[in-house]
Amino acid sequence: MLSYKMIIAVIGNSSFSPEETKLAETVGELLAQRGATVICGGLGGVMEAVCRGAKSKGGLTVGILPGQDSSMANPWVDIPVVTGIGEARNVAVVKSAQAVIAIGGSYGTLSEIAYALKSNIPVIGLNTWSFSRNGRKDDSIIRVQSALEAVDKAISVAKRRKNDEITSRSLS
Amino acid sequence: MLSYKMIIAVIGNSSFSPEETKLAETVGELLAQRGATVICGGLGGVMEAVCRGAKSKGGLTVGILPGQDSSMANPWVDIPVVTGIGEARNVAVVKSAQAVIAIGGSYGTLSEIAYALKSNIPVIGLNTWSFSRNGRKDDSIIRVQSALEAVDKAISVAKRRKNDEITSRSLS
Amino acid sequence: MLSYKMIIAVIGNSSFSPEETKLAETVGELLAQRGATVICGGLGGVMEAVCRGAKSKGGLTVGILPGQDSSMANPWVDIPVVTGIGEARNVAVVKSAQAVIAIGGSYGTLSEIAYALKSNIPVIGLNTWSFSRNGRKDDSIIRVQSALEAVDKAISVAKRRKNDEITSRSLS
Amino acid sequence: MLSYKMIIAVIGNSSFSPEETKLAETVGELLAQRGATVICGGLGGVMEAVCRGAKSKGGLTVGILPGQDSSMANPWVDIPVVTGIGEARNVAVVKSAQAVIAIGGSYGTLSEIAYALKSNIPVIGLNTWSFSRNGRKDDSIIRVQSALEAVDKAISVAKRRKNDEITSRSLS
Repeated sequence: MLSYKMIIAVIGNSSFSPEETKLAETVGELLAQRGATVICGGLGGVMEAVCRGAKSKGGLTVGILPGQDSSMANPWVDIPVVTGIGEARNVAVVKSAQAVIAIGGSYGTLSEIAYALKSNIPVIGLNTWSFSRNGRKDDSIIRVQSALEAVDKAISVAKRRKNDEITSRSLS
Repeated sequence: MLSYKMIIAVIGNSSFSPEETKLAETVGELLAQRGATVICGGLGGVMEAVCRGAKSKGGLTVGILPGQDSSMANPWVDIPVVTGIGEARNVAVVKSAQAVIAIGGSYGTLSEIAYALKSNIPVIGLNTWSFSRNGRKDDSIIRVQSALEAVDKAISVAKRRKNDEITSRSLS
Repeated sequence: MLSYKMIIAVIGNSSFSPEETKLAETVGELLAQRGATVICGGLGGVMEAVCRGAKSKGGLTVGILPGQDSSMANPWVDIPVVTGIGEARNVAVVKSAQAVIAIGGSYGTLSEIAYALKSNIPVIGLNTWSFSRNGRKDDSIIRVQSALEAVDKAISVAKRRKNDEITSRSLS
Repeated sequence: MLSYKMIIAVIGNSSFSPEETKLAETVGELLAQRGATVICGGLGGVMEAVCRGAKSKGGLTVGILPGQDSSMANPWVDIPVVTGIGEARNVAVVKSAQAVIAIGGSYGTLSEIAYALKSNIPVIGLNTWSFSRNGRKDDSIIRVQSALEAVDKAISVAKRRKNDEITSRSLS
């Protein structure tokens, strides 16, 4: 009965890298083909590539922007959410998704991975950060090797989460 | 060439009022019929009614939620944006829109009106707050008397703003 | 046993007005003399004047800044809190206080008054906004005519709130 | 001529660990003895221990709280800043400091380290996270082995940053 869509966050660097751009674009295409809405930080680099890929297959894209207006949104963002809260918007990018796909990434991406894991939102990683605490490796990120594998995994874990949410909304 | 949609924010009380509910639902229906995306705070009352109205006419609805997950979203929100930032999300509700329609409202609505006016985003008012500073009345809110008039006015001012944005994005 | 101090927020316009500057400076002096910590938005105008007044009497000042670093803090801020969240920091300015003194003010101040009243934090008003909803005047702001009266009233209502908080912290 | 103080952020887990508690308490004592203001997330665990240490030596402590009121502040917080923005407040904790000391830590701490490094704020690490991207180790955290070493290093890098800030504020 609920109308809302499966939402997958795609996070990564805003600066250009040919390899990551290709991966992100393919991820966007595949997510759109599976009917998932793409959410991201709305800027350039990986964020732009995933939106462009999704739009090329008729998908819907949401950009959670850090700035005070939508002027920095990449041209493939359908719904620019202008938060005005700077990098604190990273929390909203991941919390709005049922699963997160991380592609490469800089420190902003690392903060998003940390927020997602803290909120028990599954993170699928493509050539992204790995980390350990006090010498003990953290294995929370689900590592994959291709765009296809990333999307398959994301959709599969998101479906499980979405079912849980619908149950909790029906009961509350 | 830009793909993103006209977005109109509808703000108002989360508690139930029959008159405001009816107004909000009609506003939602009319916005959807004109092709505008509805953005709101995602909760109950006016927010729920405007989403229900929009969905009844095939529209798209975005809910900018204050909490830590989407469990509080009303069932007619297509895209629940989980900000995790509480009432500070009021900034994002209005800044994401090209125009704001205020229906009735409590203090949260008043904060949203203030943010919108500060950002030069036009506010259309239906039975909502009025205010004056040091005895001098502030006439910034565009007052209307019906849902139809509110939507007509919002679409008209939003179109003007959207054109400005597209120009600035093309030039930047 | 709790060490934390009485904290009073002072809110108002960032642009210069001789009358409001004089009021704010006197408010700052009086708050410092009563041992209250001053919290404000940390910028110019009323915010700068109240900090200057407080420092001239040996007080402590906290500035909740909207930007990405402390470079915009006025020189009388002891503790610049760099939020990076823009105007959404208005929530933090008022929620951190046991009472709020509003002096004049623009739309930012109006949003802060709205947030304070929503959170049941008392607002003392000096030549500031007044508002009504649907023609019915809202009398929630405690109106005063002088800096001395504002500070007396703020301290008195803050003491009551602080006692409540200490009780709730001891019990929880 | 600027009145504001050297501010050092101390970040770490909110859950109890005897070893980290001891480290944090000593860090707090040493920071207070050097005249630095301590800023932290204001809750329990490492945050509580560093505040308790600082207060035992007459220091000043600031807690940037995630919640809607100050009821969750630990009892050694002098200035509870009630942000109301949840974990997005992590940005403010690190951006308000001239240097950050990370002790142990969970995912929240990891997000704070990422934000600090993104903002070029030096991070001193005591038994905390390490990370690598695409197999290449990131060496941005300054690793130390004792509370004394952490404080020495933090004060030293903070002094350098503070001088830069004062210069930029004088010139602007």
